[in-house]
Amino acid sequence: MKANTEILLREAPRAELREDHFEIRQGAIPEIGDGQVLVRTILISLDAANRAWMQGATYREAVKPGDVMHGYILGEVVQSKVDGFAAGELVAGEGRWANFVAIKASRVAKLPAHRPFSNLISVFGIAGKTAYHGLTRIGAPQAGETVVVSAAAGSVGSLVGQMAKALGARAVGIAGGPEKCRWLVDQLGFDAALDYKAGNLFADLKRAVPQGIDVYFDNVGGAVLEAVLFRMNQGGRIVCCGAVSQYDTDRQSSPRGLPGLIVVKRLKMQGFIVMDYAEHDATAVADMAQWIADGKLQVIEDVIDGLEAAPRALIGLLAGENRGKRMVRVAPDPD
Amino acid sequence: MKANTEILLREAPRAELREDHFEIRQGAIPEIGDGQVLVRTILISLDAANRAWMQGATYREAVKPGDVMHGYILGEVVQSKVDGFAAGELVAGEGRWANFVAIKASRVAKLPAHRPFSNLISVFGIAGKTAYHGLTRIGAPQAGETVVVSAAAGSVGSLVGQMAKALGARAVGIAGGPEKCRWLVDQLGFDAALDYKAGNLFADLKRAVPQGIDVYFDNVGGAVLEAVLFRMNQGGRIVCCGAVSQYDTDRQSSPRGLPGLIVVKRLKMQGFIVMDYAEHDATAVADMAQWIADGKLQVIEDVIDGLEAAPRALIGLLAGENRGKRMVRVAPDPD
Repeated sequence: MKANTEILLREAPRAELREDHFEIRQGAIPEIGDGQVLVRTILISLDAANRAWMQGATYREAVKPGDVMHGYILGEVVQSKVDGFAAGELVAGEGRWANFVAIKASRVAKLPAHRPFSNLISVFGIAGKTAYHGLTRIGAPQAGETVVVSAAAGSVGSLVGQMAKALGARAVGIAGGPEKCRWLVDQLGFDAALDYKAGNLFADLKRAVPQGIDVYFDNVGGAVLEAVLFRMNQGGRIVCCGAVSQYDTDRQSSPRGLPGLIVVKRLKMQGFIVMDYAEHDATAVADMAQWIADGKLQVIEDVIDGLEAAPRALIGLLAGENRGKRMVRVAPDPD
Repeated sequence: MKANTEILLREAPRAELREDHFEIRQGAIPEIGDGQVLVRTILISLDAANRAWMQGATYREAVKPGDVMHGYILGEVVQSKVDGFAAGELVAGEGRWANFVAIKASRVAKLPAHRPFSNLISVFGIAGKTAYHGLTRIGAPQAGETVVVSAAAGSVGSLVGQMAKALGARAVGIAGGPEKCRWLVDQLGFDAALDYKAGNLFADLKRAVPQGIDVYFDNVGGAVLEAVLFRMNQGGRIVCCGAVSQYDTDRQSSPRGLPGLIVVKRLKMQGFIVMDYAEHDATAVADMAQWIADGKLQVIEDVIDGLEAAPRALIGLLAGENRGKRMVRVAPDPD
């Protein structure tokens, strides 16, 4: 029996996540039961939501101490005990941080063998669909409107800003540090980018968006959301996609002015998960493929090698060190 | 020239509104210009929003010290300098706390002479339309769902709960004090009512709505909103109609858990004003008239006599002493 490397959550973090909250273990390759497939992991998606799962049950079960860490994976079926799934097929779904994972076939989706496979995790995966559905279904920017996105250099944010431009809106990113901000403008074509770490976000927003904000795609919550709320235009839409500023801390803080600003500005704030709009996935993929072909959408990926690097890579993601979609490569794309 | 009693805002309140923030003055009956009508005030609507107007510009201009207090009025045209408006016609619109008010004809609406006129301020006025549009357009409860409404004994809340029942939903009110709560259940037919002043709202909600909350019609914000947020079901809708807990104080506090709970529960929080749905006003009036005829909707009015009583009546409204729609009668309904 071949070894199966698994990464467990050893202890639930109370504040900042550290490497010693995890533990690497060599286990057996899991036996699969009826209705299950055995998947050999190729890529693991790293997402801020992974950290939120450690804080208790959300829209899904919590990750508890002693569990092999949960994560969205892409891999190859190596064994199947269910009709309709065969060895060699490419699948993705909620898996574990391990080389081999047993999953119910009903919980995975078959994927087309689009090369490179990493695109199936980034633009044609949850990140891309989240950006597309959240922006178009909830934010619904009109041409000429102003869209602001936070965590703008991240997997979802880097796509949201470019999509806003493709839709004829003005795109303003909020990111951490002057280099990321320059990169957003020079490389990705954002109209402006603001460094929240500079500490003047209220004033910087006032200068950068004198016309006010019509759509805010919020990945962070907290103080950034508060600053944006005060600059929203009447009838503005806030896409509540994440609250990463609140995940990796024990100091939770709500923005001031709620719900008063929602009332007086007649705002809509709406949360969603990508599955809510699954019926529109094909449209999303088609539109994004067209924008890529037209040179309007650059796909930024940040691929970290090796399963053992996953804890450090997730911690780095929470600290904002990535540009574009961060994922862990566990095995090379098969031929 | 007849005397015109006017009530001014003498000083902007910094915290709780007091009678000495107002001043009563005897002025002249205003001269009207082209395009204006002179209106003799019959009824003045009192609304929590009146207090919010003193805190600065919102969706409308602020009321500043030295201004005659603004308010929604119903009255009779006594003089007109505009085609299409004649003496004797009944109109309503944004007016002033005064016996006689000069208003641009374009800013008033003609009303049918429905008796009693007070119904045009309550159920067929802004309160009723606010309850109807907010509940049906944003909350959109399905039969069998649970609707919670705060300030449930107030002008809007008392209608929202009854309308929720008429639509087949379960209605739970939140109000201040055991008597109001008994009245909501015994008199208005709410399924349950919770006294937020009892200090156990988290636990009381858990017991009263074990099935969770699908729609929350929020008139108050603050700690009540926070307690409800933690009991919302996935996909729940929060109708942000007011934040009265935040208007009459200098201690503004946002509920904890925002935007995190919006994200993980995929909630929608949306603000509105009644004019946003003006195209559906006729449907609102027809539906409400039918519910009244069917005995499903009781109209509760709290009419205070005399213009000079307006400051005290508004202060009492902010303290929650009213049941149903509070208004000031300045003159009797004409024959």
